[in-house]
Amino acid sequence: MARLTSIEPGFYRIPLPTVLTDSTHGEMKAFELNTVRLRDADGAEGTGYTFTVGRNGGAVDSVLTREMTELMAGEDADTIERLWLKAWWALHYGGRGGPTVLALSAFDMALWDLKARRANLPLWRLLGGFDPRVPCYAGGIDLDLPLDDLLRQTDGNLAKGFRAIKMKVGRKNLFEDVERVAAMRQHLGQGFPLMVDANMKWGVDEAIRAARALQPFDLTWLEEPTIPDDPAGHARIVREGGLPIAAGENLRTLWEFKLYIAGGGVTYPEPDVTNCGGVTPFMKIAHLAEAFNLPVTSHGAHDVTVHLLAACPNRSYLEAHGFGLERYIAEPLRIEDGVALAPERPGHGIEFDWKGLEKIRA
Amino acid sequence: MARLTSIEPGFYRIPLPTVLTDSTHGEMKAFELNTVRLRDADGAEGTGYTFTVGRNGGAVDSVLTREMTELMAGEDADTIERLWLKAWWALHYGGRGGPTVLALSAFDMALWDLKARRANLPLWRLLGGFDPRVPCYAGGIDLDLPLDDLLRQTDGNLAKGFRAIKMKVGRKNLFEDVERVAAMRQHLGQGFPLMVDANMKWGVDEAIRAARALQPFDLTWLEEPTIPDDPAGHARIVREGGLPIAAGENLRTLWEFKLYIAGGGVTYPEPDVTNCGGVTPFMKIAHLAEAFNLPVTSHGAHDVTVHLLAACPNRSYLEAHGFGLERYIAEPLRIEDGVALAPERPGHGIEFDWKGLEKIRA
Repeated sequence: MARLTSIEPGFYRIPLPTVLTDSTHGEMKAFELNTVRLRDADGAEGTGYTFTVGRNGGAVDSVLTREMTELMAGEDADTIERLWLKAWWALHYGGRGGPTVLALSAFDMALWDLKARRANLPLWRLLGGFDPRVPCYAGGIDLDLPLDDLLRQTDGNLAKGFRAIKMKVGRKNLFEDVERVAAMRQHLGQGFPLMVDANMKWGVDEAIRAARALQPFDLTWLEEPTIPDDPAGHARIVREGGLPIAAGENLRTLWEFKLYIAGGGVTYPEPDVTNCGGVTPFMKIAHLAEAFNLPVTSHGAHDVTVHLLAACPNRSYLEAHGFGLERYIAEPLRIEDGVALAPERPGHGIEFDWKGLEKIRA
Repeated sequence: MARLTSIEPGFYRIPLPTVLTDSTHGEMKAFELNTVRLRDADGAEGTGYTFTVGRNGGAVDSVLTREMTELMAGEDADTIERLWLKAWWALHYGGRGGPTVLALSAFDMALWDLKARRANLPLWRLLGGFDPRVPCYAGGIDLDLPLDDLLRQTDGNLAKGFRAIKMKVGRKNLFEDVERVAAMRQHLGQGFPLMVDANMKWGVDEAIRAARALQPFDLTWLEEPTIPDDPAGHARIVREGGLPIAAGENLRTLWEFKLYIAGGGVTYPEPDVTNCGGVTPFMKIAHLAEAFNLPVTSHGAHDVTVHLLAACPNRSYLEAHGFGLERYIAEPLRIEDGVALAPERPGHGIEFDWKGLEKIRA
């Protein structure tokens, strides 16, 4: 029994060093960070977080502050599956998806952190333990960078130790995408893992056309070719486009992933632990992928996700994609020669700089 | 051009006269009401609302207050499709589904109300106009009522003019459901339209078993037999259960409805204008159903929805299901001999008692 005695949400706004753009989200000037700090009757602690690209964070904060604190007060933090379902159904009406699931994700992460810290185990060992060395890639948000800047950014990523890189596609004309991908392939050399991400830009037939046009460049995957609401469309892109497809950062439930995984709509399922419902569904999604003979990748929150993929035999690449959060945590993720290392500290091992965060409260 | 000059969200908590229960939502003691009042540069006004069964309303309020007011200030209220998409994509990350869609629903409803009032047309005429007389049914929330009380409640509904009634199923044992439905059928007589609602209680095979057990009682439909996350499961229930299936109050997008409608997972699509994204997607869902040769029904918000169904040639029944809101509006929906009458007042014709609501601010 690990009775919850304290539940403390936090809500912050982290300005981005430079304004980011991709094909659908427009300008991103700041990310929002929502945190949850838990303490149980024995004094054990757990921390979870979620983030947005600039909107909906207030709604996440409301769910944490108004709903989750009341629903979870005094509960046994060790019965995570039970608490997850309790929250899911208490918040189901009006909550299935969206900010409610982001709030639940942060809370669930905090519960797993607390459990692992009580057990004095790093999360990746608690979750089963496979291999702490997780291949990772640099996810660039670079759609609007001129080609020279794109290549320079790439050199920077190589210097940081990355051995796999993802770039954005979805420029106004397909030939521009082809040109940029060709230049990147030439710059990186044959065999260097290169992915592209369309951020839902295309329709299905347009995506198939693009996938075929990009086939000469030996891409590891094409990500989010179209909207997340069309599993059958994704299945056609997988079958007819000829490129492996990654998707999932905008799916909110195990069941949505099931539509894609069982329906042949995805090659690399890509859950985000901060918006798929937390560690609990993330691991189920990864195991579902394994059952369907698929690799699993990830989106966002690399500091925590490294543990989850380090527990999955079917893990492929971890996305490394900071949004300035590294300035507010004690020991950011280490990446060496293309590999991220899941730490041996208990829990997920992230310690927030709460004093620093205090200055950027939203 | 109808430039928006004022956007005013409101957030209220409406206590229920009696605590309601169904098979999955537990006890409902109060409904939350979120409103949006718009005014344009010409002084025209529009009002929209959404509701929850007691949670997530704070998150809806946050989306309206923090995001929608900023996104929509100064926009042309007449370009609803454009504004809908603007909100959808601005709020997509972390917002696809859940409270964000409820907020968007309320806002979209207000835009349509404003448009219809500017045109001096009742909404049902503006939307195409079919027939203002819409058959409706009384939706009872009565799972835990003893049988005698259920029959007494039914007599009350008959006295109020209802000529179709829906009851809850999903009791602990299927034989109890069968017994209660049998008693209701006997009480109402042959041919009286009777529906049942399981509120997502069952698994797929369990639902098929229940549908078959309920076949002797000539039910108009079986509603929400299982979770909204399983379109393929619903398709099996339709094919193998032998009862028409209604579903949709927990679907949040046109695309989710498409999975059900095109996938054979539903007989009576049942969008809720307050949580499917608003009037704009509701009408698209109804028309999609028409293209697939299906009738459309509705959930909640009967005062507004009567207009939408009055504009649909494939409309079946309107659900009449007040939650105390009628105490706060000037002219509640009239129901005579089983038919609800779409009013001829401009817009949706609902005038809120803002002074009365002031006393129950959340």
